Formats: sequence, structure tokens, C-alpha cells
Amino acid sequence: MRVLAKDIKIAAEKGEKEIVLSGWVHRIRELGALSFVLLRDRSGIVQLVLSEKHDLTLESVISVRGQPELNEKAPGGAELRVSALECISRAANDLPYQVNADIAKIGLEAILDYRLLSLRNPKIRAIFKVQATIIEAFSAYLRDKDFTEIKTSKLVSGGTEGGTELFEVEYFDKKVCLAQSPQFYKETMVASGLERVFEVAPAYRAEKHDTPRHLNEYVSMDVEMAFIESERDLIGLEKGILAHIFDELERKNAADIALWAENGASVPSPESVEKSPIIPYEEAIKIANHEASKKKGARIFDINPEAERFVCEWSEKEHGSALVFVNEFPRRYRPFYTYPLDATCTMSFDALFRGLEITTGGRRQHDYKTFLETLPKFGLKAEDFEDGYLRLLKYGCPPHGGFAIGCERLTARVLHLANVKEASLFPRDRKRVSP
Amino acid sequence: MRVLAKDIKIAAEKGEKEIVLSGWVHRIRELGALSFVLLRDRSGIVQLVLSEKHDLTLESVISVRGQPELNEKAPGGAELRVSALECISRAANDLPYQVNADIAKIGLEAILDYRLLSLRNPKIRAIFKVQATIIEAFSAYLRDKDFTEIKTSKLVSGGTEGGTELFEVEYFDKKVCLAQSPQFYKETMVASGLERVFEVAPAYRAEKHDTPRHLNEYVSMDVEMAFIESERDLIGLEKGILAHIFDELERKNAADIALWAENGASVPSPESVEKSPIIPYEEAIKIANHEASKKKGARIFDINPEAERFVCEWSEKEHGSALVFVNEFPRRYRPFYTYPLDATCTMSFDALFRGLEITTGGRRQHDYKTFLETLPKFGLKAEDFEDGYLRLLKYGCPPHGGFAIGCERLTARVLHLANVKEASLFPRDRKRVSP
Repeated sequence: MRVLAKDIKIAAEKGEKEIVLSGWVHRIRELGALSFVLLRDRSGIVQLVLSEKHDLTLESVISVRGQPELNEKAPGGAELRVSALECISRAANDLPYQVNADIAKIGLEAILDYRLLSLRNPKIRAIFKVQATIIEAFSAYLRDKDFTEIKTSKLVSGGTEGGTELFEVEYFDKKVCLAQSPQFYKETMVASGLERVFEVAPAYRAEKHDTPRHLNEYVSMDVEMAFIESERDLIGLEKGILAHIFDELERKNAADIALWAENGASVPSPESVEKSPIIPYEEAIKIANHEASKKKGARIFDINPEAERFVCEWSEKEHGSALVFVNEFPRRYRPFYTYPLDATCTMSFDALFRGLEITTGGRRQHDYKTFLETLPKFGLKAEDFEDGYLRLLKYGCPPHGGFAIGCERLTARVLHLANVKEASLFPRDRKRVSP
Repeated sequence: MRVLAKDIKIAAEKGEKEIVLSGWVHRIRELGALSFVLLRDRSGIVQLVLSEKHDLTLESVISVRGQPELNEKAPGGAELRVSALECISRAANDLPYQVNADIAKIGLEAILDYRLLSLRNPKIRAIFKVQATIIEAFSAYLRDKDFTEIKTSKLVSGGTEGGTELFEVEYFDKKVCLAQSPQFYKETMVASGLERVFEVAPAYRAEKHDTPRHLNEYVSMDVEMAFIESERDLIGLEKGILAHIFDELERKNAADIALWAENGASVPSPESVEKSPIIPYEEAIKIANHEASKKKGARIFDINPEAERFVCEWSEKEHGSALVFVNEFPRRYRPFYTYPLDATCTMSFDALFRGLEITTGGRRQHDYKTFLETLPKFGLKAEDFEDGYLRLLKYGCPPHGGFAIGCERLTARVLHLANVKEASLFPRDRKRVSP
């Protein structure tokens, strides 16, 4: 029976005579007649002691039999005296880089070109262990609050909004587009009576700029709910979700996060999430300008990336939380379906976390008549919405709203990754479509 | 505070003086001076008693205040004496169909054209409650077995296999394709050392035929694991997954499934899953022909849809399980990367459930040299695989394999739906790209 690396000490303590270990050759050290091989499997690293000659290469997959023995100096407190060794898959000698190497030296392009190898570095693997917990905790929290998980189509007939940022798909004799967001579908499901829905799925933005903040394909963690009064209900829900995610990361991924501590990684406390301020847009602009002036920065007119950093720094100092909710965005900055607060502002919000926008959301217009009256103000025509929003609002639609959390962005900010692409297994940008 | 329909009796028993209920007008009945309105929310249906005149329309969204009173004859054992009524969103009078209507009479196209309305029918909503549990239980079982959830790109550079069934995407100045399966990525993650991974995500097939079995976009529940010996390890895993899914459906969705009992819906027992036979391909062909001959059917040469039905019927009779695993498919029917059992057969399998293939899987070739030797036998060139499979196998790749369960197909067979499209919220077929 195969034993995992993490369980070697237990096996030794039980006095097992023979166990099997399988995994990858992580390191080889020759010491006189003995070879010390570090074997890496999904659970960790274990030391093998070989007394016979071998011709192992780094990263080969092997399976070994032997007796486990306690050894305080070995990783995990025990090692395996190998009696039989099988090389299952011999790794070629031309590894493009050592998986043990300092990842800062490997460089982002090589990390992404060789995910096969880069994930073998425990620090890089930790990113995706953290990400898996984020997705799990997001889903679990919402199920517990009576949200239904949905799966909606990513192929949509051409957009009536933001047509320039869509990828086109040849769909038999038609052209369709990759969905930028499941928003219309989420709203449909809320109005269908499910009331509370969530989805974790890919979303697509054909944005041409290549920055450390952008991905052309990303994992969107979407939420939509009925019978809300304002965006404050949504902010309350997002606080609950994030506090639960952070709790779970603390519980399950402390070791993963510790690997990134040198980069500044840490998990915010649920208390700090609770204390996160809600700042109206105009106020946020003032705060950003005040912070900018202290650092002789340029004047800020919008919540741009620079402003996001300033506002988070301010909140960290003033409220002990690097999570800030900015609400009451002006109508001109939000889509036509956003619910108005008054003549100039909307019931919308962004969540900024450690200097990066991780969420956009808001209450949506649910009233058919008001929706119809709003369209011309945005230069839009009712006939383009007849099968879409107008149908949605025509047959009984509750007040509702929602938001989406960018999964890679949240992962990146928890771990203080320099580039959001590091938090995507196979990121897509303007140049990269492989592996 | 809003109370859900399902909690009306509790509120009445507590002697609450005033509660709020919100939801959709499901039915209206006038009886002298009183109106009896059934209100539907996400939790169920509750009866309202109105003594004032109203002009409500069916499916309008309303919010009411009043005192809950016990009434054995009302659904849920209590009703609300309404003291105040607010119509939040008035539904137009031209509903394309009654949500209470017999869904057989509504017809599939109308159900799909108006998901907004069709989901309001409790029987149709039940399909997606069942589906949500399937996805949750699939994921929970695998996490418990140390599988890591991954999210991989759905945009891949042109296929080296099955190029005719791919949808093309205009990706900036390139053409890429929508992924048919995350298989190569799953294998990469297994070989990266994660060993055990799963993904729930959309997959795309540009198949032109429009049948009750096919979707051009579907939710693929994918699994891949390292250190297996044969496809039997995978079949064992799939049995465990399905038994857990069925357990959870029994526990959480008994009422949803009861709504489909008239169509033949039922949840297989975990015992019947355990008893499911594993039949080699050649044997399955014989069984199918034997069953066909009893019904004067035509001779069967392949595991086609007819054979799938015959084999499941046979298994139901002989083994008390309508779930059958067919393994040892001939090499000519399986992709080049499938691990051979011998000169003619492969370590591959299909799972057939109630007459429909719900899974294809198998062990994959992990040996670099053998892989290279196999390529020319399939008319393939090594240079096309250098950045792909050859790189994957070059740097230490463990024996591994995996499979995928079609989420809509499993949902459809649990509930005995006539068409798999009924199990997709927004299905895509050759003609349908909206809503």
C-alpha cells in the first residue's frame, strides 16, 4: 500500500516493516556509499536513503519500497531505507529550469510556459491550493445562505453594450460572442423565482492592454439576489463571503500562505473585514487626492489604479483594513441598468482590496417603465431589448442586485503576487494562447 | 422582517402579530368578498387572504404584511390575513403561458425561450435544484479524497485531434478554439505533482446533429488522477462519486425528485451502484445483440445509442442496476493517447446509465518512448506534439487516467427527462443561441 510523504512518521512509529512511496525526485545528494534522495508527492517531501547505485535524474517519477525509520533530522521526522526502487518515468536531463530555483529568477514567462514544472515548486503550487479554497469557501458560504448554484451559457448573441470588448465565435452559420459576464442570466434566474443564485465560471474581456491587473479570460465568482433595498445589502453579503473565505484560508492554507510571507502575504482577520469602510465615490476621490498630495502625486479625477492604491492605504491607516467599499458611483460611469440613488448617483459599488478592484456590483433597475424611460438617455433603443431586459422586467421582477469577485485578483492580493497572471493556471493575454 | 413561505406555520405557532411575505402571485381565486391568493417564493407556496379589493395579475411580484394564522387546509398549514399589500412589479397580462400549466403541453421550445417563466414551474425548477446538488456532491466527494479543484483555459490553440468538431474564436490577430475537454490540462496538473484534480466547467462540441442526447455546450465534470494501475481504479472512483451524489440527492432533493416520479424519476440506491457490472466491450456487444434479437432488432456492431439502451436494460434485470461500465474498448475506437491493455484493446471505459452514456474515460499513455512509437500508427507526427504531450511526458509523468461525467446527461437520466436540453438552463444547439 502506498503511503503519502506526510504520513511517513506515523508509519515509522507504527513499526511498519515495508511501505511504498511514490513521487518525483526533488533532490539528490551523494554521501559516500549512500544516496539521499528527497521524494516529493502531493502531500509533501520525504527523505529516501539508498545504499545501492542508481542513475536517477531530477524530476523522474519513482516508486520505492522499504522500511520507514524515525530520524529527527529528516523532513517530517522519518526517512525510508529503500530496499527496492522502480523508475516509472525517467525525466530528461534538459529541464528548462530547476523546480527548486528561486521563482523570482525563473521569471514569469518561463513559469507560464512550463506550468508542468513550475507547479512542482511548492511556493507556486501554494497559489492554486489557496485558489481552490477560495472557490470552495465562496460556494459553501452562499449555499448555506440558500443560494442556488447555476451554470449558464458562455456563448451569447452579440452584445448590445460594450461591443468592442467581445471575442467573436464562429458558431455554425452564425457569429456569437464569448460572454463578458453572466449578469443577464443571473438576473433572469433571480426573476425566475430562484431569488438567490451564484456561479463560478470563465468570463471573457477582449481588452487589448496587457497589464499586471488584466486577464482576457478569468474566473468570475458571481452572485445575484432578490429583494434587496440597496447596494448596502450586497456589501454586507460580500463582507460575509470574504470573512468566510479568510477564515477558511487561515484554517486550511496557513502553510501555503507562509510560503508567500516574504512577499507580504497575509490573511486579513474577519474583524478587519467587518471594519472595512463604505466610502461614497466623491469622498473616495477626495481621499485619493489628499493621499496623492502628500506624496506629490498628480491630481486624481477618477477611481483609477492609482486612486485604488491610495484609498486602500488610507483605509489601512484609518480603519485597520485594506478592504474598502466605494459606493454611489456617478450615473455616467455605470451601465444603463444600474439602479439610481438620485439624479446623479447610483446604488453601485466597487470593492478595493490591497490597492486593487476585486469586485464591481450594484442594484439593478427592476421596473419596466423606468427602464424604458432610461434607455433613450443612454442613446439606446427599446427594440434592441425586447427579447432581453424588457422581457425580464415585464413578467414580475423583484428588486435585485449582485456582484462578481475576480477569483485570480483576490488570490493575487491575498498572496501579494506581482501579476494577476501568476494566479491563473493557463492565463490568456494578447500574445499568450498556450499552453 | 421577511418570512419565507415555508416558515409561515412556525410564525403562526409563535403567535406573530405581523410578518412580511414577498414573492410572485401564483394563483388568484375570488370567493365572495374575499380573495385567496397563492404567493410563491423561493421556498414554496403560501396562501394569502385579502379582504380588500385588488387588481393583481398573475406572476406580479408583491410584498404583503399581515398576521399568520393556522389553517389545516392551506398549503403549509397556515395562511396570512393580509393587512397591507404592495405591488412591487406588475406582470403584463400577455404571459406566453401559465406557469402552472402542464409542462408537457408547454413544449420544449417555449420552455427554453422563456426560462424566466418556465423556471417558475416547481417541476422545472426541481431539475436545477437536482443539478446544483449533483455539482456540489461531485466536488465535495473529490475534495474529501484529496483532489484539488482547478480552473483551466477554455481557449486553446487549434486542435491536433478532432479538428472538425471545434468552434473557432477570433482572438485578437489569431484564431483559437473553444476547448472540447480540459483533458490535456488535467493531465498537465496531475504530472505537475497535484496528482489528483477535478474541474467543473463548460466544454464545447461543434457537432452538427441535433438529438435529445446532444448539447453543443455542456457542463463537464472532469476528474484526473495519478498512480492508477488500470481503468478499474477510475471505475471504482466513479462508483464512489455516483453513490455519494445519489445519497445527497436522496437527502436534499427528495421532494424535487418526487415531482418527476410520474416520468419515472428515481434515485438509484448506493447498493445498486456498488453492484453495477463491468463488462468488456466485446461482451457488451454480445449482450446488446442478444437483447436486440429478443425484440427483433437489427444486428448491433458498436456501442451505439440502441446498444446503450439494451445493455442497461440487461443490467437492470441481471444485476439490479441500470448503471453499467463497459471497458476494454478496441484501440481503433479510442484516441491515440489511450493506454493499451494488449494488442487490440485499451484500458478505457464508458459509463452507461439508464440507456445513456454519461462518462468516457481511461488510463492515458504516460511513457514518452511508447507515446513516440504510437504516433505514426495513428498517422500523427511527433513535431505536432512537441510543446504538448511530448513535453508533458518528458519530465517525469506518473501513470494516470481520468474521466468526465456529463452534468446535464446525469441530471436528465436521474429525472427521466426526454431531452438533455431540459437539463441545461440556456442550451446551445445548431439553431439556438438565445436567450
